[in-house]
Amino acid sequence: MSKHKLIYDTDPGVDDAMALVFQALHPDIELLGLTSVFGNATIETTTHNARFLAGRFAPGVPVARGAVAPLRRAAPEPLAWIHGDNGLGNITLGDSPAAPLDARPAHRFIIDTVRAHPGEVSLLAVGPLTNLALALADDPQIAPLVKQVVVMGGAFGTDGVLGNVTPAAEANVLGDPDAADIVFGAAWPVVIVGLDVTQRTIMSRDYLASIRDRGGRAGQFVWDVSRHYEAFHQESAQLKGIYVHDSSAVAYVLAPHLYTTRSGPVRVLTEGIAVGQTLQKPSTMPVPAPAWDGRPACKVCVGADVPGMLALYEQTLCAKP
Amino acid sequence: MSKHKLIYDTDPGVDDAMALVFQALHPDIELLGLTSVFGNATIETTTHNARFLAGRFAPGVPVARGAVAPLRRAAPEPLAWIHGDNGLGNITLGDSPAAPLDARPAHRFIIDTVRAHPGEVSLLAVGPLTNLALALADDPQIAPLVKQVVVMGGAFGTDGVLGNVTPAAEANVLGDPDAADIVFGAAWPVVIVGLDVTQRTIMSRDYLASIRDRGGRAGQFVWDVSRHYEAFHQESAQLKGIYVHDSSAVAYVLAPHLYTTRSGPVRVLTEGIAVGQTLQKPSTMPVPAPAWDGRPACKVCVGADVPGMLALYEQTLCAKP
Repeated sequence: MSKHKLIYDTDPGVDDAMALVFQALHPDIELLGLTSVFGNATIETTTHNARFLAGRFAPGVPVARGAVAPLRRAAPEPLAWIHGDNGLGNITLGDSPAAPLDARPAHRFIIDTVRAHPGEVSLLAVGPLTNLALALADDPQIAPLVKQVVVMGGAFGTDGVLGNVTPAAEANVLGDPDAADIVFGAAWPVVIVGLDVTQRTIMSRDYLASIRDRGGRAGQFVWDVSRHYEAFHQESAQLKGIYVHDSSAVAYVLAPHLYTTRSGPVRVLTEGIAVGQTLQKPSTMPVPAPAWDGRPACKVCVGADVPGMLALYEQTLCAKP
Repeated sequence: MSKHKLIYDTDPGVDDAMALVFQALHPDIELLGLTSVFGNATIETTTHNARFLAGRFAPGVPVARGAVAPLRRAAPEPLAWIHGDNGLGNITLGDSPAAPLDARPAHRFIIDTVRAHPGEVSLLAVGPLTNLALALADDPQIAPLVKQVVVMGGAFGTDGVLGNVTPAAEANVLGDPDAADIVFGAAWPVVIVGLDVTQRTIMSRDYLASIRDRGGRAGQFVWDVSRHYEAFHQESAQLKGIYVHDSSAVAYVLAPHLYTTRSGPVRVLTEGIAVGQTLQKPSTMPVPAPAWDGRPACKVCVGADVPGMLALYEQTLCAKP
């Protein structure tokens, strides 16, 4: 099969880093570039981290710097208590050569790359969706040229959870709810990998230790980068391990059969106490709903083959070259 | 054990009627009164139906007429395509003597009855929550005198569903979202039996036929009243049977062990495209959430012993006197 051509829109971030390693090592993925965005940390930090990660694990893949803040709000505070002060669990990054910084802003990089490979490029977006919304605003015609948009974000309640940073909102969507509502309403195929499946998918300490011991320098990095993150999960959720957010979106690209999806238009609340909430009208729902009707259907992940996902990640990290 | 003293706040409504029969026939329930409210039909129709139902199945139990419209909105259109033009599946009601109509408005009936039995009365509310909000407004001190408030309403997504009349709202809560937000925030114990469990609980046609054949005149009534309702479920949801909404709240009163609950404050959205949505902050959620924090915890049903519930209803309807 031909490889999946991906642009990875990311705000590294610990799980962003773990997902980058996953993409870089999987033979079926061709990374065309990384685009940075504010979110888990400031744009300065996420761009720095994206260049470090690409330089170390995906040499030759460029990084384009993206949005510093949401479309219509102030930038959120960095999530230092989750991702560390440096966005990468406070590990020492060492002196790998950083990836080259593309001269274009992220949204122009996206537009140009999509237009260079019409119908072939998937956008894998695991931070606030500002860059994608800016790309649509700058060149609305790219939407039908994109193969698919796979988003880690949102929550639909099927696992009993509607949010992680508020009772109604997941962090990436809350990071720029206006952008998310635009992206979910555009004429490209959207798949949303939200907390419904990412909080069901847990890498235990033993699982991570096994990857450390068998995954070479990438495995060691995954272990190192996740220590602070694991401590956060232990403290906040009494979890013996870590939720698998961003890497679940990578897994969807590689193996969509691991996920059960539900189809229907999705709206994002942009104001009020539930700002950032994602709400789908399932296509099976018979009632009229003017705020949803007429918008394109998105696929929302509502079930996951968790052992299958974890095996795919492990096999990718621990494969003999 | 002493009986459960109940006030049944209701907008009959087919499933309201089925739940009234359940209450009237169960030996552990002492019905102190019915209070009517707009909702499934107009207040004229629901009051008429409540008087018919009490007169036929709970002789001597009074009915007090309640709110004609929500606190701050126009009354919704009657749900005739669900409950029939007469609110009771278009069956002929016959000429049973109607229950006496109490001279007081519903909210005064509630206040006086609660004050007459401090700590003993449960409010079982299966329509829009306007009467309860009016009672709180008229006499805020009654809240701690109420044993518990059991509400059929809302949806929390754990069954993949956040609404039935919109993608974000269940009919009773949408009927008066302002009242629901008041009731869920008051200083009385609240249990919410929402779509998460009521749409998992289905009475099949065979189940209803068995009750018809073994349940005497009450069983025949349950069958007759549910024909139109069953056809609605078949047409709208391709369901071979009917969802068990209001009777699930009765079952909670009688047998709370049949339900798994989650604790935490609940807010209701009162504006925007998701108006009427119920949102809980689970007590295990570690993040601050000013719109929730400081409000009392409600219990939200997130799991049900469906065979146990159905057996309880069947045994009650088909018990030999």
